Amino acid sequence: MRIGLLTGGGDCSGLNAAIRAVVKHGIGEYGHSIIGFRNGWKGVAEGDVRPLTRSDIRGVLDTGGTLLGTARYHPHSADGGLDAVRSTLENERIEALICIGGDGTLHAASKVAETGVKIVAIPKTIDNDVAGTDRSIGFDTAVHVATDAIDRIHTTAESHNRVMVVEVMGRSAGWIAVQAGIAGGAELVLTPEAPFDIDRIARYLRHRHRAHASFSIVVVAEGAVPAEGTSMEWQTKYGRFGEIVSGAISERVAAEIQERTGFDTRVTVLGHVQRGGTPLPSDRILGSRFGVAAVDALQQGRTSVMTALRGEEVILVPLEEVAGKAKPVPPELIRTANALS
Amino acid sequence: MRIGLLTGGGDCSGLNAAIRAVVKHGIGEYGHSIIGFRNGWKGVAEGDVRPLTRSDIRGVLDTGGTLLGTARYHPHSADGGLDAVRSTLENERIEALICIGGDGTLHAASKVAETGVKIVAIPKTIDNDVAGTDRSIGFDTAVHVATDAIDRIHTTAESHNRVMVVEVMGRSAGWIAVQAGIAGGAELVLTPEAPFDIDRIARYLRHRHRAHASFSIVVVAEGAVPAEGTSMEWQTKYGRFGEIVSGAISERVAAEIQERTGFDTRVTVLGHVQRGGTPLPSDRILGSRFGVAAVDALQQGRTSVMTALRGEEVILVPLEEVAGKAKPVPPELIRTANALS
Amino acid sequence: MRIGLLTGGGDCSGLNAAIRAVVKHGIGEYGHSIIGFRNGWKGVAEGDVRPLTRSDIRGVLDTGGTLLGTARYHPHSADGGLDAVRSTLENERIEALICIGGDGTLHAASKVAETGVKIVAIPKTIDNDVAGTDRSIGFDTAVHVATDAIDRIHTTAESHNRVMVVEVMGRSAGWIAVQAGIAGGAELVLTPEAPFDIDRIARYLRHRHRAHASFSIVVVAEGAVPAEGTSMEWQTKYGRFGEIVSGAISERVAAEIQERTGFDTRVTVLGHVQRGGTPLPSDRILGSRFGVAAVDALQQGRTSVMTALRGEEVILVPLEEVAGKAKPVPPELIRTANALS
Amino acid sequence: MRIGLLTGGGDCSGLNAAIRAVVKHGIGEYGHSIIGFRNGWKGVAEGDVRPLTRSDIRGVLDTGGTLLGTARYHPHSADGGLDAVRSTLENERIEALICIGGDGTLHAASKVAETGVKIVAIPKTIDNDVAGTDRSIGFDTAVHVATDAIDRIHTTAESHNRVMVVEVMGRSAGWIAVQAGIAGGAELVLTPEAPFDIDRIARYLRHRHRAHASFSIVVVAEGAVPAEGTSMEWQTKYGRFGEIVSGAISERVAAEIQERTGFDTRVTVLGHVQRGGTPLPSDRILGSRFGVAAVDALQQGRTSVMTALRGEEVILVPLEEVAGKAKPVPPELIRTANALS
Repeated sequence: MRIGLLTGGGDCSGLNAAIRAVVKHGIGEYGHSIIGFRNGWKGVAEGDVRPLTRSDIRGVLDTGGTLLGTARYHPHSADGGLDAVRSTLENERIEALICIGGDGTLHAASKVAETGVKIVAIPKTIDNDVAGTDRSIGFDTAVHVATDAIDRIHTTAESHNRVMVVEVMGRSAGWIAVQAGIAGGAELVLTPEAPFDIDRIARYLRHRHRAHASFSIVVVAEGAVPAEGTSMEWQTKYGRFGEIVSGAISERVAAEIQERTGFDTRVTVLGHVQRGGTPLPSDRILGSRFGVAAVDALQQGRTSVMTALRGEEVILVPLEEVAGKAKPVPPELIRTANALS
Repeated sequence: MRIGLLTGGGDCSGLNAAIRAVVKHGIGEYGHSIIGFRNGWKGVAEGDVRPLTRSDIRGVLDTGGTLLGTARYHPHSADGGLDAVRSTLENERIEALICIGGDGTLHAASKVAETGVKIVAIPKTIDNDVAGTDRSIGFDTAVHVATDAIDRIHTTAESHNRVMVVEVMGRSAGWIAVQAGIAGGAELVLTPEAPFDIDRIARYLRHRHRAHASFSIVVVAEGAVPAEGTSMEWQTKYGRFGEIVSGAISERVAAEIQERTGFDTRVTVLGHVQRGGTPLPSDRILGSRFGVAAVDALQQGRTSVMTALRGEEVILVPLEEVAGKAKPVPPELIRTANALS
Repeated sequence: MRIGLLTGGGDCSGLNAAIRAVVKHGIGEYGHSIIGFRNGWKGVAEGDVRPLTRSDIRGVLDTGGTLLGTARYHPHSADGGLDAVRSTLENERIEALICIGGDGTLHAASKVAETGVKIVAIPKTIDNDVAGTDRSIGFDTAVHVATDAIDRIHTTAESHNRVMVVEVMGRSAGWIAVQAGIAGGAELVLTPEAPFDIDRIARYLRHRHRAHASFSIVVVAEGAVPAEGTSMEWQTKYGRFGEIVSGAISERVAAEIQERTGFDTRVTVLGHVQRGGTPLPSDRILGSRFGVAAVDALQQGRTSVMTALRGEEVILVPLEEVAGKAKPVPPELIRTANALS
Repeated sequence: MRIGLLTGGGDCSGLNAAIRAVVKHGIGEYGHSIIGFRNGWKGVAEGDVRPLTRSDIRGVLDTGGTLLGTARYHPHSADGGLDAVRSTLENERIEALICIGGDGTLHAASKVAETGVKIVAIPKTIDNDVAGTDRSIGFDTAVHVATDAIDRIHTTAESHNRVMVVEVMGRSAGWIAVQAGIAGGAELVLTPEAPFDIDRIARYLRHRHRAHASFSIVVVAEGAVPAEGTSMEWQTKYGRFGEIVSGAISERVAAEIQERTGFDTRVTVLGHVQRGGTPLPSDRILGSRFGVAAVDALQQGRTSVMTALRGEEVILVPLEEVAGKAKPVPPELIRTANALS
């Protein structure tokens, strides 16, 4: 079988483990050909192919990023995009596609699948907000990077009696914020799921510092918002590509805290470091298992499905059940984050 | 409520996160008193108490080991052990116990629970072989340490054209071996679950090195055994305390490989480093969630239960359903390890 | 002897190793009393003492920050500051002071020494710009954090064909920028020592991307400035305390690059993470050696000196020779950074 | 110029940084051709060449090991070795050689240089025992790995009230032992430089545990030996290649401590992990600087020299002054290790 392979959307750690698994298992177990496309759906539309052999995936297991490159491009919303995709797949005699991506890529995959293309999807996103799976590739490593940063900021906060505001990724879900907040021992975690009241926050910090504390750490997801009717007015800021502007909410939250409490308050925006670098073992394992499972799924004639982790097991779920669905942080986890502050 | 708290069995990373959560949540949410016991069940039998306050658990979230100490002692198998436990609990007016431990500690907990003591257990073991839960505290960090070591050994193996045998912990289950093997890109993984044939191994390595490879990495769980009827005779070696002797099987496997293949073959036994050190975020989070859940369980009158992770959720399972049960590595995971070699 | 001990200025990693060494060696070898002051010179002026015993320094060797706290306060520029210092030292019967700090603290130390106080100084600064010593406490760890971030950003830059601008600390010297730039394989390093020409930078990047590259990494010290007479006008931005505003220069450089080249250009400002967290072995060793050497110096009657590393040796240098002196990055190192781009 | 390049002896972290610097600087600055030899002097003797271009050294800066491979082979002690070397150099029209290696490789280099070959050497050894330079490539990373292991072992020692014996590399010098011992807060450090008295050790540990301690960490260099006339008899054990047998001394020391004190005493032998993996920034920087300096040296007509670090500077020293010389740990450093126990 000739299998096409692409990675779409933002990069993250563990993508190369999945690519390696598709190539090793596809070639080694079934004798398939694996045809990579550069830069996600864009490469499919443009016919930018890179056939992958065993030697291409040597030494990539512990590397970050994606050796295929990636781009934000959606064939169904680009002019003639779906036709270009079909045409490339025919020219390259691709019999099935394995798409590794997040929300946008999965949505595109379901659109392309509707045109009759056999597709198996593999979920990746540092935001962990793909529905239907316990974990997506890249999340655990992002939490690790964010926790490591909070650990470091802890010691400087303590030494200087400061409030430190740390902004992490998460536009529509607060998974990184909540998990890194618990792991890093943050006092407060602000997420898109639970709009905040800046006055309550200021009261809590004043109370805490009056009682015993000499510092506090506030973790803020970039998509966090103040609750309606509370005293902080806020218009979410959007950048060139319509995305939430990195740093905007945390700078504002810090200014409001400083004004209300008088405490020296500083901001750190973690930014791109959360995407890259050596993947944690769990992301390498998840990528490897998903890659093997995707190849096996095609072999068994399964299509329009996504690989998913459920407890200890890797299963397949219909693409239509998950594409476009949100996966908010469960209340128990948010409660734990608050219980330990 | 006066709640007793102990950590038993081997130490691991994430125990202090669980202790911290019990103390913070127990005191902060419900006003309980938390009475720690030093050195596991031994401390309970001997009345070696250490009351825990908020200040005792400051700064411990990211530390390895257990601030309460631990020991291998089982009250039900020690003379007068159960009576001593009862007596201490009465003297200290302990109304319920939270026990953090692995197989042995959970078994002891079920025996003590039979005498009428209210108990909630929290599973921890770097071996990940406690039944009923997807994960136990300490496992992810152990896999991380082992993977990091394999990554390092990779580069030296490559530079010198060697076969490197790496022994990891796992006496009755090969969880660390399989996960670190997949994450570290090992060529072969030997586990207690799947007895090995040394001749097949030697053939595979000869074939691999003849084809293209200049080195190979073999990960061996300390409880791995040769298959019956195969050419390597082996009598598992036991130490003073009846435990499997660290290094024995890997030294033997390396000697047999070298003899059969002529390749320069070296051994690394990871040993105690797998137990300790800064816990990964996932172990801090698991410890924190389990600690909160254990306190909540007691508040709700649940007893003789163990906290457990199932997918994204923390649930409670009856102690009798899990104590003494094994949890072998599932075949899909072993298959993935082999598929990618 | 009763020895006072303080840490001043910004915090960094390795301070606790130095504090621990002063306490262990001072008490263990000579039977001295070690009297800590909280929050640097401010604590001396205010008489905020914390006597230090062996148990206070247990477990601190591998921790970041300073257990004594720190503050930016200079007794010679505060009203009545020097008198308050003298008065505290008399009340506490302090016979000598060990001051751990950077430029500001060393300058204050020399002013206090002029009033007749016996002082030994220990240099610390993540900027590595204290004269007279090869290394100051905290620098190596800061370089490690910055390099780790660049490594992570590398993979995301590669996956997305971007120019990534990474801002590191360094207001008057570019030590972190140059070392992390070399270690992280950056294409360009901008430092205060060598004012840059934004047009040459843009030309170089265009040339590089036309030739072969799909991404570039530019490391910018926060004190970097454009060369006079070049096309980028720039007024350094100063914050509330007269310090250079974090992020200002890198945001501007990124905008200029994007405008001139059309390449997607993104900024990461590392900020406070460079100060804290687990110290590298070399900072623990440096802190330990300096602490031992400072106690030995007082014992030998040496005063108004600073401990310093020269090659493999720890020596003492007169405080007056180093206080207020700059230590720019040597040209050979800047040349190496450029040679490898 | 056609420059030959080889890496000899044991592998370590930072070699690829040096190779990369030689290639980038040699080609980019001077237009040289860089001809790599596989597997050290063996590859030179056998004519096993691998020409190196810019694309060969892409992505290697942060990798461990050596992309050229290495072997323990000395042309001057092999039959016809020097002639084979000369013959290859002539066939390949090599005008000068850059040799990266430790003691053995440097000694071979001086022998080959005597036959008229232009040679610049670059020192690497995790043992740090090459004379004439403050640091050799690979040492800092080895210390980091060893310290990280001691940190992990610390927490498990503490939790179980044990004496932990940790064996690190160092056959003729105790650099790793002393530095990782200081950085890891070890109680005792045993080195080849200072033969030990096992009875004094046992007395010290008994005293320490009686006084206050619940655990102790003893770091042992593999070349440590008991002092003559003391109560522990010891015949150093040698392996197949005449090298000291890994683990032998530490197993023996642990047994003697356990027998004399009764404390539960465990051994960890770190082994090969010390050689490999992601290099610390300082080893990447050292490799980069040495690589640039070696190319520059040849350009300036300097030959039979070794690059060396002295304080902040990279200098050149005559090969004859350093080959075969030892570099023991200075007494001040050993004293510091003991002062802080």
